[in-house]
Amino acid sequence: MSQTGILYLIPSNLAEDTADQVINEQVRAVIKETKYYLVENLRTARRYIGSLKTGVVIDELHFEILDKKTTPAEVAKLMGPALQGQPIGVISEAGCPGVADPGALAVAFAHQKGIKVCPLVGPSSFLLALMASGFNGQSFTFHGYIPIQKKERIDFIKQMERHAQKKQTQLFMETPFRNNHLLEDILQHCQPDTLLCIAKNITGADEMIQTKSIKDWRKAKPDLHKVPTVFLLY
Amino acid sequence: MSQTGILYLIPSNLAEDTADQVINEQVRAVIKETKYYLVENLRTARRYIGSLKTGVVIDELHFEILDKKTTPAEVAKLMGPALQGQPIGVISEAGCPGVADPGALAVAFAHQKGIKVCPLVGPSSFLLALMASGFNGQSFTFHGYIPIQKKERIDFIKQMERHAQKKQTQLFMETPFRNNHLLEDILQHCQPDTLLCIAKNITGADEMIQTKSIKDWRKAKPDLHKVPTVFLLY
Repeated sequence: MSQTGILYLIPSNLAEDTADQVINEQVRAVIKETKYYLVENLRTARRYIGSLKTGVVIDELHFEILDKKTTPAEVAKLMGPALQGQPIGVISEAGCPGVADPGALAVAFAHQKGIKVCPLVGPSSFLLALMASGFNGQSFTFHGYIPIQKKERIDFIKQMERHAQKKQTQLFMETPFRNNHLLEDILQHCQPDTLLCIAKNITGADEMIQTKSIKDWRKAKPDLHKVPTVFLLY
Repeated sequence: MSQTGILYLIPSNLAEDTADQVINEQVRAVIKETKYYLVENLRTARRYIGSLKTGVVIDELHFEILDKKTTPAEVAKLMGPALQGQPIGVISEAGCPGVADPGALAVAFAHQKGIKVCPLVGPSSFLLALMASGFNGQSFTFHGYIPIQKKERIDFIKQMERHAQKKQTQLFMETPFRNNHLLEDILQHCQPDTLLCIAKNITGADEMIQTKSIKDWRKAKPDLHKVPTVFLLY
């Protein structure tokens, strides 16, 4: 235990029942030593820690919620144990904390207070999609969730396509129940020879990662409804 | 074994002697089943597979070099075993294949031929740096190695700073023996209140990840000479 505390960024599995496969020994060792957690979702965090079968007694752990409603002032309070020298773990809903979740708030606070930040290795859907796309990994932009409004969204897609044409890979996502609409918009508004990689349910049993031209995707569209998907243009 | 073959993207450890900690069970299971490898560096790939202690006999494996000199025509030949239904593994010098290494060539070929591409979970220095920076992970650009020429390089740094001011995190790297020069350029040409995260020897025993303003970094500069480092502006 460090005297100034430590903030562990603890990844969790993306697809159900895959923790045994994708979570490494270091994550297990950290969970055995950590009593305080800031989590995006209480139920999934508890279930995740239980699924690692480290022998930890879940009822002896302290969980606090860190989600998109948490204010910076609240974060300062939640980080109390770290200021007293305790290790704290951040666990997001799925994947790596601090990327597309509120974990960054706790990290920013830690840097301000000189608390050591230790990111642990684990699954990240956008990284796995990038690796498997075959696109340029030396230069890329991740946009997170793209605009919902029709006009703004189509402009955004066309702008991403222009960057992709300059050899910068473009990664983006959509709320899963709107995935099929997003795919329609991409197929309708991108050029026939632009490459699109669709990475669906990464690390899951029905994982599908395929790169094709827009004109080839137009011939046979996959059903992405309610399935976590990363889209890449190049 | 799939009839159309499969291309596994196999991550390796970043820092020395950390494979036991950061490499998961799925990677070990794939290595037990895979006889054909495309690797960036023969010696480090053999040593890596040996270090996992899976019981695999290294001398029974087939290694081919896939590096920056490999042409697309050569890749087609190297991928022969996959076309005959064999699993092939890609291993880069360190970290995740397909991101900042020639692995993407093999992936692009696989997509063209309908060979399944399976990315495995493992360490990625830029992802860990992003998680631990406290910066915006919903919108970021990774630039890989930035220009070497002085004028072009300073323009590039200033342009990145403008994007960072628009809340898009900027990630970049330099050849380790030029790290201190890059740091000088950043400190000289960025605004005092711009935030810089320096992530040095990630996953290593002397890992250092700190976020400070440019004006605070100016007061005490870390020595980054010959140490793998990711830089982030925000």
